Amino acid sequence: MADTVFSKFETVKFEGPDSTNPLAYQYYDADRVVLGKPLKEHLRFAVAYWHSLAMNGSDPFGGPTINRPWSGAGDPIALAKVKADAAFELFRVLDLPFYCFHDADIAPGGATLAETLKNFHTIVDYLGEKQQSYSTKLLWGTANLFSHPRFMAGASTNPDPEVFAWCAATVKHCMDATVQLGGANYVLWGGREGYETLLNTDMKQELEQMGRFLTLVVDYKHKIGFKGQILLEPKPKEPTSHQYDFDAATCYGFLKRFGLENEVKLNLEANHATLAGHSFEHEIATAGSLGILGSLDINRGDALLGWDTDQFPNDLWTMTMSMYHVIKAGGLGLGGCNFDAKVRRQSFTEEDLIHAHVGGVDLCTRAFLTAAKLIESKTYDAILDERYAGWKTPEAQAMFTGKLSLEQIAAKAEADAINPQPRSGKQERIENLLARSIYTDKL
Amino acid sequence: MADTVFSKFETVKFEGPDSTNPLAYQYYDADRVVLGKPLKEHLRFAVAYWHSLAMNGSDPFGGPTINRPWSGAGDPIALAKVKADAAFELFRVLDLPFYCFHDADIAPGGATLAETLKNFHTIVDYLGEKQQSYSTKLLWGTANLFSHPRFMAGASTNPDPEVFAWCAATVKHCMDATVQLGGANYVLWGGREGYETLLNTDMKQELEQMGRFLTLVVDYKHKIGFKGQILLEPKPKEPTSHQYDFDAATCYGFLKRFGLENEVKLNLEANHATLAGHSFEHEIATAGSLGILGSLDINRGDALLGWDTDQFPNDLWTMTMSMYHVIKAGGLGLGGCNFDAKVRRQSFTEEDLIHAHVGGVDLCTRAFLTAAKLIESKTYDAILDERYAGWKTPEAQAMFTGKLSLEQIAAKAEADAINPQPRSGKQERIENLLARSIYTDKL
Amino acid sequence: MADTVFSKFETVKFEGPDSTNPLAYQYYDADRVVLGKPLKEHLRFAVAYWHSLAMNGSDPFGGPTINRPWSGAGDPIALAKVKADAAFELFRVLDLPFYCFHDADIAPGGATLAETLKNFHTIVDYLGEKQQSYSTKLLWGTANLFSHPRFMAGASTNPDPEVFAWCAATVKHCMDATVQLGGANYVLWGGREGYETLLNTDMKQELEQMGRFLTLVVDYKHKIGFKGQILLEPKPKEPTSHQYDFDAATCYGFLKRFGLENEVKLNLEANHATLAGHSFEHEIATAGSLGILGSLDINRGDALLGWDTDQFPNDLWTMTMSMYHVIKAGGLGLGGCNFDAKVRRQSFTEEDLIHAHVGGVDLCTRAFLTAAKLIESKTYDAILDERYAGWKTPEAQAMFTGKLSLEQIAAKAEADAINPQPRSGKQERIENLLARSIYTDKL
Amino acid sequence: MADTVFSKFETVKFEGPDSTNPLAYQYYDADRVVLGKPLKEHLRFAVAYWHSLAMNGSDPFGGPTINRPWSGAGDPIALAKVKADAAFELFRVLDLPFYCFHDADIAPGGATLAETLKNFHTIVDYLGEKQQSYSTKLLWGTANLFSHPRFMAGASTNPDPEVFAWCAATVKHCMDATVQLGGANYVLWGGREGYETLLNTDMKQELEQMGRFLTLVVDYKHKIGFKGQILLEPKPKEPTSHQYDFDAATCYGFLKRFGLENEVKLNLEANHATLAGHSFEHEIATAGSLGILGSLDINRGDALLGWDTDQFPNDLWTMTMSMYHVIKAGGLGLGGCNFDAKVRRQSFTEEDLIHAHVGGVDLCTRAFLTAAKLIESKTYDAILDERYAGWKTPEAQAMFTGKLSLEQIAAKAEADAINPQPRSGKQERIENLLARSIYTDKL
Ligand SMILES: [Co+2]
Ligand SMILES: [Co+2]
Ligand SMILES: [Co+2]
Ligand SMILES: [Co+2]
Ligand SMILES: [Co+2]
Ligand SMILES: [Co+2]
Ligand SMILES: [Co+2]
Ligand SMILES: [Co+2]
Repeated sequence: MADTVFSKFETVKFEGPDSTNPLAYQYYDADRVVLGKPLKEHLRFAVAYWHSLAMNGSDPFGGPTINRPWSGAGDPIALAKVKADAAFELFRVLDLPFYCFHDADIAPGGATLAETLKNFHTIVDYLGEKQQSYSTKLLWGTANLFSHPRFMAGASTNPDPEVFAWCAATVKHCMDATVQLGGANYVLWGGREGYETLLNTDMKQELEQMGRFLTLVVDYKHKIGFKGQILLEPKPKEPTSHQYDFDAATCYGFLKRFGLENEVKLNLEANHATLAGHSFEHEIATAGSLGILGSLDINRGDALLGWDTDQFPNDLWTMTMSMYHVIKAGGLGLGGCNFDAKVRRQSFTEEDLIHAHVGGVDLCTRAFLTAAKLIESKTYDAILDERYAGWKTPEAQAMFTGKLSLEQIAAKAEADAINPQPRSGKQERIENLLARSIYTDKL
Repeated sequence: MADTVFSKFETVKFEGPDSTNPLAYQYYDADRVVLGKPLKEHLRFAVAYWHSLAMNGSDPFGGPTINRPWSGAGDPIALAKVKADAAFELFRVLDLPFYCFHDADIAPGGATLAETLKNFHTIVDYLGEKQQSYSTKLLWGTANLFSHPRFMAGASTNPDPEVFAWCAATVKHCMDATVQLGGANYVLWGGREGYETLLNTDMKQELEQMGRFLTLVVDYKHKIGFKGQILLEPKPKEPTSHQYDFDAATCYGFLKRFGLENEVKLNLEANHATLAGHSFEHEIATAGSLGILGSLDINRGDALLGWDTDQFPNDLWTMTMSMYHVIKAGGLGLGGCNFDAKVRRQSFTEEDLIHAHVGGVDLCTRAFLTAAKLIESKTYDAILDERYAGWKTPEAQAMFTGKLSLEQIAAKAEADAINPQPRSGKQERIENLLARSIYTDKL
Repeated sequence: MADTVFSKFETVKFEGPDSTNPLAYQYYDADRVVLGKPLKEHLRFAVAYWHSLAMNGSDPFGGPTINRPWSGAGDPIALAKVKADAAFELFRVLDLPFYCFHDADIAPGGATLAETLKNFHTIVDYLGEKQQSYSTKLLWGTANLFSHPRFMAGASTNPDPEVFAWCAATVKHCMDATVQLGGANYVLWGGREGYETLLNTDMKQELEQMGRFLTLVVDYKHKIGFKGQILLEPKPKEPTSHQYDFDAATCYGFLKRFGLENEVKLNLEANHATLAGHSFEHEIATAGSLGILGSLDINRGDALLGWDTDQFPNDLWTMTMSMYHVIKAGGLGLGGCNFDAKVRRQSFTEEDLIHAHVGGVDLCTRAFLTAAKLIESKTYDAILDERYAGWKTPEAQAMFTGKLSLEQIAAKAEADAINPQPRSGKQERIENLLARSIYTDKL
Repeated sequence: MADTVFSKFETVKFEGPDSTNPLAYQYYDADRVVLGKPLKEHLRFAVAYWHSLAMNGSDPFGGPTINRPWSGAGDPIALAKVKADAAFELFRVLDLPFYCFHDADIAPGGATLAETLKNFHTIVDYLGEKQQSYSTKLLWGTANLFSHPRFMAGASTNPDPEVFAWCAATVKHCMDATVQLGGANYVLWGGREGYETLLNTDMKQELEQMGRFLTLVVDYKHKIGFKGQILLEPKPKEPTSHQYDFDAATCYGFLKRFGLENEVKLNLEANHATLAGHSFEHEIATAGSLGILGSLDINRGDALLGWDTDQFPNDLWTMTMSMYHVIKAGGLGLGGCNFDAKVRRQSFTEEDLIHAHVGGVDLCTRAFLTAAKLIESKTYDAILDERYAGWKTPEAQAMFTGKLSLEQIAAKAEADAINPQPRSGKQERIENLLARSIYTDKL
């Protein structure tokens, strides 16, 4: 086993709620069976290569603060292997079942397309070897089509068709690599698919380019027999002023328009939800109700800041609501909970990174446990059943299913002299119920 | 002619940019022909009954400041007629071709559904008479399904099917009234179609109720042979915490899901755009690119405030961009520019209301004139043509139209060793161009 | 005892965390001694007359949903007494030690100033009688100088000096009433002290009017020997576009400018904090560090909405942080925790109102208990002591206290060739610590 | 004259509103006399070294797009001189009278404090030479105390007193350099003076450190006889979560607390205003009314985005309002209009940078010309005079100046049975007036 910056850390263990060890899990007991299967199969936690191995602590007003052995000068391929060695040691320390990567996270770009792809495959092979020695698997792969200047005006939506072609080549290879590494999903995030100003943008043309690109990806998936999910990741803005995959509902309309709603699902991120003006649970419930919930990027935004802070989560209320709607939607299936979260600039030590993940894992787990209890006890099901009970009558179903026309419903309403009366929504009462479930109930 | 609070005002006239008369139009020369037809046919300005005749200046922290003769005590039907008399005099003063109303704006509610509908038809008949004596026509009618407590938990999305039935009856009669009065469009705004908290909400059920309701409306339209447009008005929040018709893209997905994308278009409001995190021009360009631009609600939000201020517009930049995308989308057709805008609480006099409309009409007109010049000169068309020129080659078209698969594009990119180079987006240069067009060019 | 709409409810009791009774307190054990005194003396909970007795569920898009016996027609004074009877029964049900009111909440306005004041004193006397029979006391009184149209352009900042005079008369009587009822504080909230547009506003003049007014109030306090605190309540916007008392830091500058920083403290509201772009704990810590923390208005905004939703709180993280900084600042003294919170429109029953308060009381109490533990264990004190330890050296103190000039410090830094090294801020680790304290620790 | 990347561009000339040359000024006629002095003396435009010479187009999701000759490898001092040569050629092309810089913009950091200072003075000397050959002067100098990792937890507010000392040394040398180069002002922007989380922050201690630091700076100014202004630049957030110099009103309170309100003024930035929830004109009017308006950083935020986009301005309405309040406050004095604005990532050519400044200069100039006309015509003065006329009576002045006590005012109000009546704020009318002045009036 290579000696890496994470090798000195012991594997984080489950020690239960009474543990005072900050580097132990209080709630994440991977094999604990809940709702018929172990937690690790429900939650399918993943470590993100970019934020944990590649991010350097810089921000728009300051340079790097995080220096790892692979950040310095040297042979790029050799450094990429040092990084990979460390990555798998980090996965080992956290004892989580999955990881995720962009091509650009794992391997250095080259001077040409050919060299770039060659570098990429060299490291993909190396990751394949690492996977033999460690238990962590690939949740999903993806291509970084936003950082290099060639993508500055878009990837598949670029005014220059050569960029579209570059992206096609890159995604083909990234999909191949994902298959090679046994990845469960392939993700597309359109970091530059949007615009800075409408003045130089042909939105109609660009949306059609994007539809074509996604169609090509889906076709290729079928051609190579990839059984994983293809996932879009919505985000409304940043780095662009407006991004086309704004939120779950917008992506649904896009998929529907190009006939892809049964082929592509969504990878929903908490911070992207809030930037779009939604709660995370709203996005999950929306995707769930439309049948396109695929996977989660776990993090937290700061409601008082307007950019993608990608902090590790600590809001138990919204995470519990989120997990509740995940379960309601039938779970994450091949998806999982990927920590698309980064330590902040001042947390530059390796230990900071481990603390961050321990906190995030426990928060999600505790949220899931509470949500599962609420599901099992049918607490909220009963509330909804009572609230919508009226719709179960034959008369209401006749309206609901379209057996009555507008004028028939109108005629009946007038004939019956209906006078519907307000009923309390009991919001405060049922919020108290949730507060008690989250903050007081034993898990 | 009835003596009303507006009767003392002379009809506002076009006097040209040199006029110093605050109650004259500097730009709105209704019969000036631009792009092949008179301004009045492009812009189709409408006065909103609610903000101009029914709104009383109250806000969440204070009571009414606007007292009109019809606000006081008395026979409700008689007062409604006094209001209608004043309304048509206001339309006369402003010399605008259209007005819009909700059922609740024009007629008092009754103790029962039957009485409510009777009151409504009484006043609809009276409006029909008024239309004989005045030149102002109905741009659209709509039903207020949000103010009464019976709608507090939703209209078509209410947990109580009786509320759905009440809404069906109401909309049927409002559609009938719209036809009777020669209305060009029928609008639905889902003020309470959304939720306060997900905890007591079955989003899937509610969205299906909403889909059913809109389908019933479209079927009824065809049954009665109404030739106007059915329009949805997006808004993301307020009065609810989340409203289902969030924005143009969300509405498109909803229409597509229920197969209504060729039946229903959108009535886009500037302030609703900004509450959803979009510019007005973005919403217009989005609807235009999806073929669902229907009509506009003209107003302005305050970017520093988080609620629907519905102020009269004064931002010439965003209005010019908006009008540019209206023209690009083929114009408003049967739609128009409805002033869904209100004077602020301190502007309680009749004169304030007239000033407000004069400013709004002139701003929109000036914006339209600049936009038309930009269209005629092909200024931005030329910029886009050059920027997207690469996509016109046969090779690019082969990718664009799906003649090549992902792996074929990839193979060719690798074989050609492509290396696409960044090109400047020239954003500042083309923004300067717009600034000069708006702020300096002669109209 | 009068028979009121609240009389049927039993007094809410402390039953401990295991209670499943939704109308019991799980945490608020009023007499439990923490940090040397009972919880009731730390928290000093108050019920707000306006939201609980006067608010009717209306919003900008809909009319009243809440109808109480005193909302209907009848003799205004008699109805005000019915309301007062119900108010004290509500206080009895909740078993909370304080209430708060505006003049306009408790008594009807009259046709003249004299009649308005007469009505007010009639009801103040009646409240005095009620206080004899109930244990609930007055936390603070205040004047509503924002709802009536006369205040539409400001109260003390009005362009019309007669409005200033009206406000002076009103506040004098409200202060007298507060003294008469044994109130512990007198609050000023400047609902209309701000502007809609700078175009018609003389900000300099208005700020001086406001400074004069507050000076008059402070002088009067001393004259009548009132021993309570005078409190300003910051809020950045709504109902106006900009309000002068924007946030804690702005109020501090205002007090300093008029020499009132030792005379006036702040009543901080959670939702007002978030509207100003701050967390509630930030505002509390700011006021604490400036020595002007006076009292709290407890509620919660919705981070995704841009107006003052004034919901009952349910975020345990921010409330724990808030209580932590309250204790750090030396506690609330004569101030308390006033529920400036309202049930939402759909929660129109009396029971909804009780549930709302029970949840709010328990959330604040639990937050206080955790904060007190953190204080007692010196958990965060130790972290800060270590982090700022460098400042305790004599050399550092010489810089800190001004014994060295800029050039002396520079010379020494150059001579010593200092090279300060980054140290981790350990943010994620110490956030995990708080998460465990809040979500897991036994209380 | 060195051959630089800007040397090929001709000097931008004033050609008047009819010019169609995109690289000419339509409005900025530097010598045109308005309000008694030439435009160049009113506006005192400056080019910012950082955004124009040092910024490389990177953002949090992508690397550099702008490559200039001095960005590559080579001797850092030699490259810094190449940069300086280009800088002065850019100033020559734009024909603007001033520039501004941070120490880190002009000279490379060194391995030690001594080397860093040595590099700095080497280039300061070089800039001094350049100033001999060009007409552009220094508007202000400043120190970058936020980019290097040593400042990650604050500059003067750092928990480590050595960082405070480093900052003291740096600012001393930057002030010396500013004097040496004839700078008119010295600016402090506290990029890292704030916190990421209150959990590891002693706000009271940090604010006192900051007060001490500013006091040292002011003392040093007097010691060396610097006649320029010391300026603070408010900003609410980014890069930190909360920055202490939140906005103009907060800074005023801070200055007042440390007795510096007559020693230090503000450098107000448009984008920082909007991030704080204010309009630019609000911040200017606030600083003006408090006597602390110092200088302006000209740019524009995007109201729909939540970070500091620092775009070049194009909103004529807000800029006109801003210039109006600048003139009302007595002008900018030793301050000026510094373009703290950057081209966006896709605008990587030198020409883009010139277009950007031309547009910005013309927008500010046109805004100033309109504002000056409004001042000269006393248009808004007359409106305010009428609106506040009541305050000029002896009775009102008696209240205003404190000759009457609260109870005296109350007694008189009651005796007089005052009944103040609402008057229209006429907001829409006076906004129309401004629209006409901005968009239609001849300049
Ligand atoms: Co993500
Ligand atoms: Co993110
Ligand atoms: Co509207
Ligand atoms: Co609106
Ligand atoms: Co409050
Ligand atoms: Co509030
Ligand atoms: Co700046
Ligand atoms: Co900035």
